[in-house]
Amino acid sequence: MNYPSKLIEDAVNEISKLPGIGKKTALRLALHLLKREEEHTRSLSDALVAMRTQTQFCRQCHNIADEELCNICKSAKRDSSLVCVVVDTRDVLAIENTSQYNGLYHVLGGIISPLEGIGPADLHIESLVRRIADAPSDEPVREVILALSPTMEGDTTAFYLQKKLRPSGVKVSTIARGVPVGGDLEYADEVTLGRSIVSRVAYD
Amino acid sequence: MNYPSKLIEDAVNEISKLPGIGKKTALRLALHLLKREEEHTRSLSDALVAMRTQTQFCRQCHNIADEELCNICKSAKRDSSLVCVVVDTRDVLAIENTSQYNGLYHVLGGIISPLEGIGPADLHIESLVRRIADAPSDEPVREVILALSPTMEGDTTAFYLQKKLRPSGVKVSTIARGVPVGGDLEYADEVTLGRSIVSRVAYD
Repeated sequence: MNYPSKLIEDAVNEISKLPGIGKKTALRLALHLLKREEEHTRSLSDALVAMRTQTQFCRQCHNIADEELCNICKSAKRDSSLVCVVVDTRDVLAIENTSQYNGLYHVLGGIISPLEGIGPADLHIESLVRRIADAPSDEPVREVILALSPTMEGDTTAFYLQKKLRPSGVKVSTIARGVPVGGDLEYADEVTLGRSIVSRVAYD
Repeated sequence: MNYPSKLIEDAVNEISKLPGIGKKTALRLALHLLKREEEHTRSLSDALVAMRTQTQFCRQCHNIADEELCNICKSAKRDSSLVCVVVDTRDVLAIENTSQYNGLYHVLGGIISPLEGIGPADLHIESLVRRIADAPSDEPVREVILALSPTMEGDTTAFYLQKKLRPSGVKVSTIARGVPVGGDLEYADEVTLGRSIVSRVAYD
């Protein structure tokens, strides 16, 4: 494309490096910024740089944090005997939004995927094992909940984690898989429906 | 949403102010930047600010420019007797990409739309009339080509422009409307097909 200005071209090239944004969308975003006040572009740009340079990863759970420990690990209100293992920060946010969980997290930073060349050593698995072993005896970790996607990679990672955690004797569980709430049985796929029958729950 | 870090929250809020980007996409983009090197975020941020603060609008055609005149208006290779009227820079890029046009442009900066409260005074229409009147007599503007979308707003704007340009005596034309090249007749809508019959072209 023949851009009317070198500066626009540079901006479009930079924006289109973001995932899921092509040249056309990038141009639309650039033209939008050009139409708005200068202040708007400056605050966007400052927020991005501040986020990238000033955030760190929590020493304990590897979630994104403003300080050495994240808000969740720091909180005295959370149940430190429960650790929920997730792939990334988005999963932490998704679980936090349910308001159904009050324990801590452990962010793996990815999932075991031989196809993409991601092995156990690339993830925060060793630090999870150490975290459970090093927990103070008056506040031990009682249960590790695996909240991984029900995909082949998720299942592989879950299997590996179970094996690594077995020596510590900690209880390991996984989030329930079944028919989604509000979903019509008719539209559930066979694998999910089949699993929901196998893992049926008795009424109390 | 409960963000793990105030900095992430600020960045997500800023990114989601862009058109077509919601909170979820903004979070995905923010996490992507966090995973990449710091340099990446810095160059994105610098390119945005440079674009916003250093670009200007061409004095003659109102297209985006690095200097007082845009590359197209400055070029000695372009035919200055042809002026193509378009809505915005994206249309200039689209026409440039066809390599079928060698004249100059005039960017209106919008389209007449009573529903959105955009009237003729909000667009660069007066400057188009002046541009044609003030053209040097050895290089007059021979023809004004209206390249506006075939919508109600586009037709209204075209009608208004024709009326404003009539006193100058300049020839005014519009881009052809008809069945798209490569399109199947069967799939063309009736209005387009009807127009393509009315505006049929004789073989030479």
